[in-house]
Amino acid sequence: MDETVPRPATDTGGVGQDVLAVFLPSGRRGRFPVGTKVLAAARKLGVDIDSICAGRGICGRCQVSVSSGEFPKFGIHSHPEHLSPRGALEDRYVKQRPLAEGRRLSCSAQLTGDAVIDVPPESQLHKQIVRKQAESRSVEIDRVVRLHYLEMTAPSLSDQRSDVARVKAALVAEWGLDDIAFDPRLLAELPGLLRESGWKLTVAVRNEREIIALWPGFHDRAFGLAVDIGTTTIAAHLNDLETGAVVAAAGIMNPQIRFGEDLISRLSFIQQNPDARSELTATVRRAVDGLIRETAIEAGAELTDIIDMTVVGNPIMHHIFLGIDPAQLGCAPFPLVVDDAVTACAGELQLRSVNPATGVYLLPCVAGHVGADTAAMMLAEAPHRSREMTLLVDVGTNAEIVLGNKDRLLACSSPTGPAFEGAQISCGQRAALGAIERVRIDPETLAPRFQVIGSALWSNDPGFADATAQFGVTGICGSGIIEAVAEMFIAGLVTHTGLIDGKRFPGCEWLEPDEEVYSYRLQEGPPKVLITQTDVRAIQLAKAALYAGARLLMDMLGVETPERIVLAGAFGSYIDPKHAMILGMIPDCPIDHVRAAGNAAGTGARIALLNRAARGEIEALVRRVEKVETAADPGFQKSFVAAMALPHARHRFAHVETLVTLPPRRGKKPKTGKRAVRDLGEGG
Amino acid sequence: MDETVPRPATDTGGVGQDVLAVFLPSGRRGRFPVGTKVLAAARKLGVDIDSICAGRGICGRCQVSVSSGEFPKFGIHSHPEHLSPRGALEDRYVKQRPLAEGRRLSCSAQLTGDAVIDVPPESQLHKQIVRKQAESRSVEIDRVVRLHYLEMTAPSLSDQRSDVARVKAALVAEWGLDDIAFDPRLLAELPGLLRESGWKLTVAVRNEREIIALWPGFHDRAFGLAVDIGTTTIAAHLNDLETGAVVAAAGIMNPQIRFGEDLISRLSFIQQNPDARSELTATVRRAVDGLIRETAIEAGAELTDIIDMTVVGNPIMHHIFLGIDPAQLGCAPFPLVVDDAVTACAGELQLRSVNPATGVYLLPCVAGHVGADTAAMMLAEAPHRSREMTLLVDVGTNAEIVLGNKDRLLACSSPTGPAFEGAQISCGQRAALGAIERVRIDPETLAPRFQVIGSALWSNDPGFADATAQFGVTGICGSGIIEAVAEMFIAGLVTHTGLIDGKRFPGCEWLEPDEEVYSYRLQEGPPKVLITQTDVRAIQLAKAALYAGARLLMDMLGVETPERIVLAGAFGSYIDPKHAMILGMIPDCPIDHVRAAGNAAGTGARIALLNRAARGEIEALVRRVEKVETAADPGFQKSFVAAMALPHARHRFAHVETLVTLPPRRGKKPKTGKRAVRDLGEGG
Repeated sequence: MDETVPRPATDTGGVGQDVLAVFLPSGRRGRFPVGTKVLAAARKLGVDIDSICAGRGICGRCQVSVSSGEFPKFGIHSHPEHLSPRGALEDRYVKQRPLAEGRRLSCSAQLTGDAVIDVPPESQLHKQIVRKQAESRSVEIDRVVRLHYLEMTAPSLSDQRSDVARVKAALVAEWGLDDIAFDPRLLAELPGLLRESGWKLTVAVRNEREIIALWPGFHDRAFGLAVDIGTTTIAAHLNDLETGAVVAAAGIMNPQIRFGEDLISRLSFIQQNPDARSELTATVRRAVDGLIRETAIEAGAELTDIIDMTVVGNPIMHHIFLGIDPAQLGCAPFPLVVDDAVTACAGELQLRSVNPATGVYLLPCVAGHVGADTAAMMLAEAPHRSREMTLLVDVGTNAEIVLGNKDRLLACSSPTGPAFEGAQISCGQRAALGAIERVRIDPETLAPRFQVIGSALWSNDPGFADATAQFGVTGICGSGIIEAVAEMFIAGLVTHTGLIDGKRFPGCEWLEPDEEVYSYRLQEGPPKVLITQTDVRAIQLAKAALYAGARLLMDMLGVETPERIVLAGAFGSYIDPKHAMILGMIPDCPIDHVRAAGNAAGTGARIALLNRAARGEIEALVRRVEKVETAADPGFQKSFVAAMALPHARHRFAHVETLVTLPPRRGKKPKTGKRAVRDLGEGG
Repeated sequence: MDETVPRPATDTGGVGQDVLAVFLPSGRRGRFPVGTKVLAAARKLGVDIDSICAGRGICGRCQVSVSSGEFPKFGIHSHPEHLSPRGALEDRYVKQRPLAEGRRLSCSAQLTGDAVIDVPPESQLHKQIVRKQAESRSVEIDRVVRLHYLEMTAPSLSDQRSDVARVKAALVAEWGLDDIAFDPRLLAELPGLLRESGWKLTVAVRNEREIIALWPGFHDRAFGLAVDIGTTTIAAHLNDLETGAVVAAAGIMNPQIRFGEDLISRLSFIQQNPDARSELTATVRRAVDGLIRETAIEAGAELTDIIDMTVVGNPIMHHIFLGIDPAQLGCAPFPLVVDDAVTACAGELQLRSVNPATGVYLLPCVAGHVGADTAAMMLAEAPHRSREMTLLVDVGTNAEIVLGNKDRLLACSSPTGPAFEGAQISCGQRAALGAIERVRIDPETLAPRFQVIGSALWSNDPGFADATAQFGVTGICGSGIIEAVAEMFIAGLVTHTGLIDGKRFPGCEWLEPDEEVYSYRLQEGPPKVLITQTDVRAIQLAKAALYAGARLLMDMLGVETPERIVLAGAFGSYIDPKHAMILGMIPDCPIDHVRAAGNAAGTGARIALLNRAARGEIEALVRRVEKVETAADPGFQKSFVAAMALPHARHRFAHVETLVTLPPRRGKKPKTGKRAVRDLGEGG
């Protein structure tokens, strides 16, 4: 030991003596004989340190560093030189890979004096995955499939154990893993791998129960794919299972679209062509296979290194992916075929890009219209871990709605129909290049301006025509139509009951009458883009369904104002909470308590991929969620009718009123002329 | 109750009173209130009664009959009318299927008076399978896969549980089966089956853990296939899993024969053509698929009703079936790739004739040359359940030898080579039509006579030529060559050292000299069938290897004479124990303690198919068998050399001497002329 380092009173360095080792961040500490390996000390104390190579100085997962200085809290003086000098294992390691200044391999370094040992996050087996959004839960890695490096001896006449027996014995001896099964499909490659690698092997063990993949020699690359099968798009995120990082992402249009744009049309296609069901299944599986290959190429990963998968989707996508006829999901009483989580292997699902033994975990479905995507959203947003009364909404053809907190959780689905997706709207279209997604109406002049997907310019900005010339303004998507109707309401163009009140604005150049019925024009075109009276009614129906569903759950829990509203899904990310609340789509709530969660289903799929306990968590949670059937509830229809009015016929939207001055309700005779906007009531 | 039936003192018939029910053969008894269903009483007492339909009067498995008369042992008078009259369930049942005179459905009949109730064997869940051979163990059925009939309610708005949830709930409620998994491949067919059958379903549950097959409505047909993959032939037995009966059997030549007649030539073929290994695997799997179809057709069984399979084979056949390169089994130290039992499913093994979820259980292998077929032989002959010191021998290219009893078991393999299979014998051939299989030599005239496969006549019987004209006498098979050499030895034509002693018999018309070396002619031909000096040497080598292997194990256990010798396999069934012992192939032993067991491997495969506990039994047994490597033992070579002599250079064959007068050993000068046979020593 370097004599320049002052020895503290508690320093007991020296042969035969004990020294104190304190591990941070856990704070676990204990006394060990001088010469004890740091990894051995950590194991003894239950300190969470990662390892693939079982202390052979190969994997570099067990790196630590030692703090320098006095630690009055522990009564010791710590110094990096209170570990043995760099040893042979470390010398060999640094020839292969860099070892940062101050870092030591805990499987090599021995305690020679008191030391405060930092286990950096990347050396922790259960390291936290830092999330982008501060509001979301943080997740730690708790791998379902773990890599274990094994060294074995070759058979001899005095040791004729089988290859499998050697692997199993090494798993017991080096990892304490007993009674591990071997996927029978791996047996064929085992003898070759063992012999070509000199009896060095890395195995992937799932759930501490089954070997599902093999590599010759030392191997530390393992990936998992989280897949979100949406009606419109399929998204996949490839994750490094060792670090938890997303290493590649890819998305494609769901190729089932050629069998029907939305769920209902796909269901009727299946009903009319029963033989086509297997084709829909094969189509989506091929698409997932394509995403596997695409993400692997992007990440430079071998397909054989993809050893785990999770899948989420709405009930119909979930069932079709499993090859199940989703017909019964289309008619009352809408029972699922399977609600439990499904664990299959890639081979069983005819996914051909990965090892057939690769597990595919489908998160559980909640109810007939509340799928594995909603379960994943719950896992990501974790209302069950909070006291906050949280409303989660995922808007699509159906709105999946979850309300509750750690004490109680309710879920339902509400039939919003396809209006929010731009379908059944006269100039509606899917959110794609050229679709109007933002709308503002000048309250004085009633002139519209808008933004389209693909350009940041407003339609009245200079250069807008040039910027959009390539694709043109083709129609209006869901978020656009919501803003349009909300802005028309604020401007007085639409009444509380949803009437486009053209008679109030004679000569308004953006209003187009057809006998008694008016449309509001956003663009002269071509193509002409109009908001028709029918469009407003469609939006009213959709938003009323959404509100009524949320209201039903709120009434059941006696909640007037949720403490947190989370809008999930692509649509939820694009709609402006303010406009949604002005329309009365979502319950009244302080606007800063409303948040778009983006692809919460995809996040949930990723959590289930990286954290083994999360699978049990969501399975238990889904079992205890109270499933509410809106169709079966007599109050729902009543609530639905009342919610048709803007923002609502019965409930006051106090928080909305702090944002805009809402038009007065029925009974007040409207003024005419300028400034009519702010106090326009119902017209005749 | 019929008043003509005398009431015994203990008769307590009548509402509110208890009656005594005694079940036979178990003898279990108990008092129950009048009106108790017989099945309920049996369940309460733990009486073993079968059922598929859970007491709905559909399956007829729970039939019982009631004895009539006084039973002083139980202190009661029993009478068939002490059960309630035939009820509605039974009336409905007899419209579908016959119910024998006196038989009652225990799920329908109620106790009305004291009764001695016979549970016939076919109504017992764990019924014994009666074996043909009294010496063999008897086995009871203990199904790995069981059928359960379920009735469920349809979904409604007030009960929206998923289809899977309904099935699982019914399994818990009616069968107490909790936490049963669903094979994901079955989910696709589930909703259709449930709806077309009015929510009545039969499920096959494996190991009380997993649903692996479904049928609409009530279904009570279930089959299992036991497969024995031999080097030469593949045999399959289809078993009714409910009764245990063999309902069809089929065998074919192993199609791998085109890659090599014996194991060694197939191994070298693979070594020279590494790419052909998968073709060998595919070939054997296709052959098994063919046997599945063939036995199903023979039994009139649906392929979907085959829900379990067991497979045995020697290590090379076992490994090739699993797709494993068997190369290392061909050279020291001969390690297996896998020795543990392997549980796969048909889909994983590309067996396409059955449901992919059908389980395929491969029995464990014992050691490098001691395969799953030997394990199956051990299971069938059960030396570990007996005090008798048992020697099990399965002779093929290698002899697999097991010695021991309930205290200790040893196993080894001995390289007998292909001579016993007729290979490397000048006129040798496989046991097939036209092959000589029995040989006798007249001790006076030295004239041979023989029988061939395909005819019961001896070659000197009138009509032999006609009877064999269709196929002719084509050569000599393994059992024939053994008898020929043994008879030549008895006749003095072959000395103790194995020399064909032609000089002793000048002018003998059946001896053909080639300079100093003689051959013995069985047939002039064409084809000419000779036993050459080289043939005798080949048989000496083979029998010495076999004996030395057995001797090695006997010496290790300190055994001089086994109490039981079992010759297993096709070859073991055809050789005459007397001739085998005269040659010194097998150890000396009272001849009536030697028995041919026929296809013991196939029997073991069948036991593992029908009895769940047998799988655990053989797995545990194989682990505790002491594996002896003959190649590693210094004593083996010495023992081998001593065993070259006929019957042996060192050991006395006292029991053989009671059968025939053996020629005197070396040192005694032989007499010449007639009666030379009995005391012929070694010639020069």
